Amino acid sequence: MDCIKPRTLSGFMELLPGPQAQMERIMAVLRQTYSLYGFAPLDTPAIESAQVLLAKGGGETEKQIYRFTKGDADLALRFDLTVPLAKYVALHAGELAFPFRRYQIAKVYRGERAQRGRFREFYQADIDIIGDGKLDILNEAEIPAIIYRTFRALGLTRFQIRVNNRKILNGFYAMLGLADKAGEIMHAVDKLDKAGREKVGQLLEEDCGLTRRQRDEVLDFTGISGSNSQVLSALAGFAGRDPGFDQGLAELEAVTKYLAQFGVPEENFAVDLTIARGLDYYTGTVYETTLLDHPEIGSVCSGGRYDNLAAYYTQRQLPGVGISIGLTRLFYVLQEQGLLNPALPTAPADALVLPMTEDPGPAIAAATYLREAGIRTQIYLEQKKFKQKMSYCDKLGIPYAVVLGEDEIAAGGCAVKDMATGQQVTVSLAEAAQRIAQGVAEKNQGPIILER
Amino acid sequence: MDCIKPRTLSGFMELLPGPQAQMERIMAVLRQTYSLYGFAPLDTPAIESAQVLLAKGGGETEKQIYRFTKGDADLALRFDLTVPLAKYVALHAGELAFPFRRYQIAKVYRGERAQRGRFREFYQADIDIIGDGKLDILNEAEIPAIIYRTFRALGLTRFQIRVNNRKILNGFYAMLGLADKAGEIMHAVDKLDKAGREKVGQLLEEDCGLTRRQRDEVLDFTGISGSNSQVLSALAGFAGRDPGFDQGLAELEAVTKYLAQFGVPEENFAVDLTIARGLDYYTGTVYETTLLDHPEIGSVCSGGRYDNLAAYYTQRQLPGVGISIGLTRLFYVLQEQGLLNPALPTAPADALVLPMTEDPGPAIAAATYLREAGIRTQIYLEQKKFKQKMSYCDKLGIPYAVVLGEDEIAAGGCAVKDMATGQQVTVSLAEAAQRIAQGVAEKNQGPIILER
Repeated sequence: MDCIKPRTLSGFMELLPGPQAQMERIMAVLRQTYSLYGFAPLDTPAIESAQVLLAKGGGETEKQIYRFTKGDADLALRFDLTVPLAKYVALHAGELAFPFRRYQIAKVYRGERAQRGRFREFYQADIDIIGDGKLDILNEAEIPAIIYRTFRALGLTRFQIRVNNRKILNGFYAMLGLADKAGEIMHAVDKLDKAGREKVGQLLEEDCGLTRRQRDEVLDFTGISGSNSQVLSALAGFAGRDPGFDQGLAELEAVTKYLAQFGVPEENFAVDLTIARGLDYYTGTVYETTLLDHPEIGSVCSGGRYDNLAAYYTQRQLPGVGISIGLTRLFYVLQEQGLLNPALPTAPADALVLPMTEDPGPAIAAATYLREAGIRTQIYLEQKKFKQKMSYCDKLGIPYAVVLGEDEIAAGGCAVKDMATGQQVTVSLAEAAQRIAQGVAEKNQGPIILER
Repeated sequence: MDCIKPRTLSGFMELLPGPQAQMERIMAVLRQTYSLYGFAPLDTPAIESAQVLLAKGGGETEKQIYRFTKGDADLALRFDLTVPLAKYVALHAGELAFPFRRYQIAKVYRGERAQRGRFREFYQADIDIIGDGKLDILNEAEIPAIIYRTFRALGLTRFQIRVNNRKILNGFYAMLGLADKAGEIMHAVDKLDKAGREKVGQLLEEDCGLTRRQRDEVLDFTGISGSNSQVLSALAGFAGRDPGFDQGLAELEAVTKYLAQFGVPEENFAVDLTIARGLDYYTGTVYETTLLDHPEIGSVCSGGRYDNLAAYYTQRQLPGVGISIGLTRLFYVLQEQGLLNPALPTAPADALVLPMTEDPGPAIAAATYLREAGIRTQIYLEQKKFKQKMSYCDKLGIPYAVVLGEDEIAAGGCAVKDMATGQQVTVSLAEAAQRIAQGVAEKNQGPIILER
């Protein structure tokens, strides 16, 4: 028969079992941390009506979207988890208790131009808190605190959650009479890192039409830096000139204060006036998260406060705050940079039971015993030579081989070989289970993500 | 602003948080059981090249598939997890260790006519073991043993894994000189349950062109029943007439024998000659699983042995055995029939901390303490009256409210209210954590699925 060449589409991540185990480990940490904070897991369809998904319409999104028909239905694949959340909350508002806290870790689809490290199918890991009419500012401090715990649980310490407030930016531009140019200006300011102050100043004057004085004010404002209290003090100097600014400043002060109460150390968050996060969605606090030793990765976790989640679907006012980890891209970069701890086991089993007698009964019984002790156990069921069986154990990286030959069976025990040290002991099944469980627990110590 | 009516497509399951928690619990049991047997979790893209996905081509599948273009790419959504597995194994064969054991719990897509209880997007939960060239018969006994453990872990006891072997059926029809009519005959025999013996006999004669004697032989053979040893004895009476039949019988005897060694009780499996499982894919052992008190649900878990997983993609012989749970449909039916244990908690949190003072600090500290003890804890952060806070706790079904008022804070503790009994005690944080953990553990006892 003629074969069709098997291939996986470009821009679609498909991992071998080892890396997949690393990915699963990260996902398990996310699920566990989000659950510890009382977020409900949510699962929405990958396909939605195109009319519903594109209610907001227009823009880059519409070009990237996977849209197709089936029968006479106009369908599309979700391109983020926020629009499906908006639909869900609008549709089920009467059956939900507010504040509604949900997490969702799921694939989304964007038909971007394929490019190394860019994905067309990728996981987002989102948490959001949605209020009915109102939502307390405390939520805006709790969300980054959860991210802090998540990153710590992944083994990281050298990261920074950068916080700003959109009302401060909008208020500041309003003070300068530049409210209608806020978008353009932020776009130019966004280039500060790469283009530098002089070039951005030129853009502000030439492209945005700012006066020299306005230009200087914008650059000076954006340049405010220092400790969190220094930045907040500097901002206080602008107070009393625009009510929106004042409100934003009060919110930022509150978030900063509560972040400390929520247990986030000073070194893990920073007030940063250069953070803006797009233009039309967020209305208050905004976040970005960077790995201090890997600024080149960019923000690994971003989000913010919005006043109206589902305006396209309901008249009901549903303010919220949320944050999203671009998991597939993060995983790709961590892998590329060698930051996934190679010391953690990735084998699908903790123990491989090797039957050495014709009757597989004792080996099956031993495997059942180990599983009941919580040990992930595979029995090697093929008729192969001992050497080949051990080589399979080795290739899969299974840390313990459990051999059941005539002698071991007669003695009512088994031989346990530690594949890393080569050390082999003949012990009872109970002791084997205890040794393996302890060894596996030790091998699973250590951070998931390394910092260099 | 004009709103677009939010809606979820028909044929797509979208659960409220309570039922979603039940679904997550079932999925967690599947993941855990599959992992205990050394299966590696796998994740493949939902979108594949249509050419790759439809390599086998034709049939019902092609009509149901979601197929679309993006740019000049001809794409399709996976309609099962077996074709993507075949592609994966063919593509990565050089990097995998065989036997390759993987599980995958993921959504697949079939644009069937919408109908109550039929889904266009649904989870399949698959396990497969793939060999390189060969795969021992023991694997064909281990797979149903894993299903047995899975169903037991879900709380079920009254289910039966029904086992047959395609070689026996093919061999039997060959004995009668009906090898080329095997497909038609099995199709007619499949109607026995509904149409009865007489009607099927008529079909066999009129539609399949069997002689009266052939008809009787087929009906008598299919009617063989009794205990497993009785059925195997009856089958032994046909031995020696067709080599395929003899091999199938030997395999069925081996699977039956090893199933017992793998710990599956006699009452949970049955040799059943009416099981055929489609025609072109399975080549040996086949399985179906039924809930004894709910035969109307049909098979909840089916699979079998195949000699060549990836013939469309590679010349390499990759025999395997696998089984699949149609999870979304199973969940739907369990929900419909009221078989999901309503006593198990479905709240997103175990404890709701209620700050009763202006400073949320002590409440935040208490929540942090509880989380460190592994308790899923939400803080109620909104400015509401006590009654409204308690009503939220109640509506979400959170089992414990933890109140932090002036008095409790002064005494260095908290008040813990058991929402089910209304009992409230003022205790230290340590005791609160211990009480809640114990209470939650008790509430989580009990089967996930009920049997009536």
